[in-house]
Amino acid sequence: MKAMFQRDILPHIAAAGGGAAIHIRTLHTFGAGESTVAERLGALMQRGRNPSVGTTVANGVVSVRIYSSFESPERALRELEQTCDACRQALGDLIYGQDEETLADVVARMLIERSRTIATAESCTGGLLSKYLTDIAGSSAYFVQGWVTYTNESKQKLLGVPGELIERHGAVSEPVAAAMAQGAMRLSGASYGVGISGIAGPSGGTPQKPVGTVCIALADAGETAVRTFVFPGDREFIRDRAAKMALSILRFRMLDRELSF
Amino acid sequence: MKAMFQRDILPHIAAAGGGAAIHIRTLHTFGAGESTVAERLGALMQRGRNPSVGTTVANGVVSVRIYSSFESPERALRELEQTCDACRQALGDLIYGQDEETLADVVARMLIERSRTIATAESCTGGLLSKYLTDIAGSSAYFVQGWVTYTNESKQKLLGVPGELIERHGAVSEPVAAAMAQGAMRLSGASYGVGISGIAGPSGGTPQKPVGTVCIALADAGETAVRTFVFPGDREFIRDRAAKMALSILRFRMLDRELSF
Repeated sequence: MKAMFQRDILPHIAAAGGGAAIHIRTLHTFGAGESTVAERLGALMQRGRNPSVGTTVANGVVSVRIYSSFESPERALRELEQTCDACRQALGDLIYGQDEETLADVVARMLIERSRTIATAESCTGGLLSKYLTDIAGSSAYFVQGWVTYTNESKQKLLGVPGELIERHGAVSEPVAAAMAQGAMRLSGASYGVGISGIAGPSGGTPQKPVGTVCIALADAGETAVRTFVFPGDREFIRDRAAKMALSILRFRMLDRELSF
Repeated sequence: MKAMFQRDILPHIAAAGGGAAIHIRTLHTFGAGESTVAERLGALMQRGRNPSVGTTVANGVVSVRIYSSFESPERALRELEQTCDACRQALGDLIYGQDEETLADVVARMLIERSRTIATAESCTGGLLSKYLTDIAGSSAYFVQGWVTYTNESKQKLLGVPGELIERHGAVSEPVAAAMAQGAMRLSGASYGVGISGIAGPSGGTPQKPVGTVCIALADAGETAVRTFVFPGDREFIRDRAAKMALSILRFRMLDRELSF
């Protein structure tokens, strides 16, 4: 079919197009909202511009779609590249990949390039982070092991989180997420440990810690960083955003940059 | 909006429909192929029948769609119920739920009704089974903890799988999956332990154990059952099918029935 299409059909389509050529590329960002991305793109998003630049959002990923249409394929591609460069300039580290790449793909490639390994300790995400990390063929090169510690007891027994920490700060707290990340790293011997503890809802929220509150910690031999997010949306959305944020935090650590959002 | 629709718009639509009424229901099965389901439905799937009965497949779930169209809502519903009963008769335990219900929803409800708990030990599915089990609000009532043991070492160290078993049978084997399930149950104190070990591909297959080979074990206090499947498809498909099969095996155990496929 592909050979038939290329030999017999494509030339007709190209001829019917009057020689005009289109090149498209999509750059993906995670972490900043669509309005922030649009603001940073500024004049690049002006109506009528060619190549045109637009944003779309799907599953927390804000994507920048660049559409280049010119009389020749060469010019369409050249203009596309120039606009891409301008978008990269404007968005910097926010861009993690392009076209078919997922955040997990990029993090996996970075782990492999650096010969680093990872272990996960998840509460509210229930295995979604380890699922993302092992979606990729060859993930055994960097994924060592994961724990889904839903109960307080399992956080203590399996990951060595001090019971006193849970009592004093609650299971959804930065000290507990940090202890989960450190436990995962120590027990697995991995280069990185990630700890996630949060309230995916719909119940379990309090005025101090509403539904959507998620503490995410990343430990390596040098330091343990932990941050608290409050994600909007329903259970599925919150879990997905938390797992992707953990990947994003890991990406920034490997880039040796501060989170830029 | 809903009130406006019901008060002002719905009556017009009902009048324009000439009084004809439609009722639709979808029954979901997992485990048997579409052809097996169709064979068991037999004459119910005859063309021109009203209510009509048809099958669709999505993500390994074979669904039976019953479409009942009659002059009155009462008759449409009555005929729908009768055809549903006939389908249930034909398919028996293969049907796990209807309409919006997922296999995980049903398994979660059954666990809660029986006051049972579960722990998971996953290799090739990488956390997807625990993700499915914790997709549901209130999952802490039955989900105790999960391990994602990707390496041989982690299977031994975290779950107590004897190294000698892995050496003799390989990590993807029924004895190892069984030991993973038993380890998960024993270490968590849960009523059930599930162990999954397989080759999700695309590489790692051998003539004896091709890509798609997955051993799934279910342990409870009474017995440990283990079975080997060879799932077709790509990595994502194999992982999804394996996690759903584990849920299905658990469902049959709770029904106290043999797997009927």
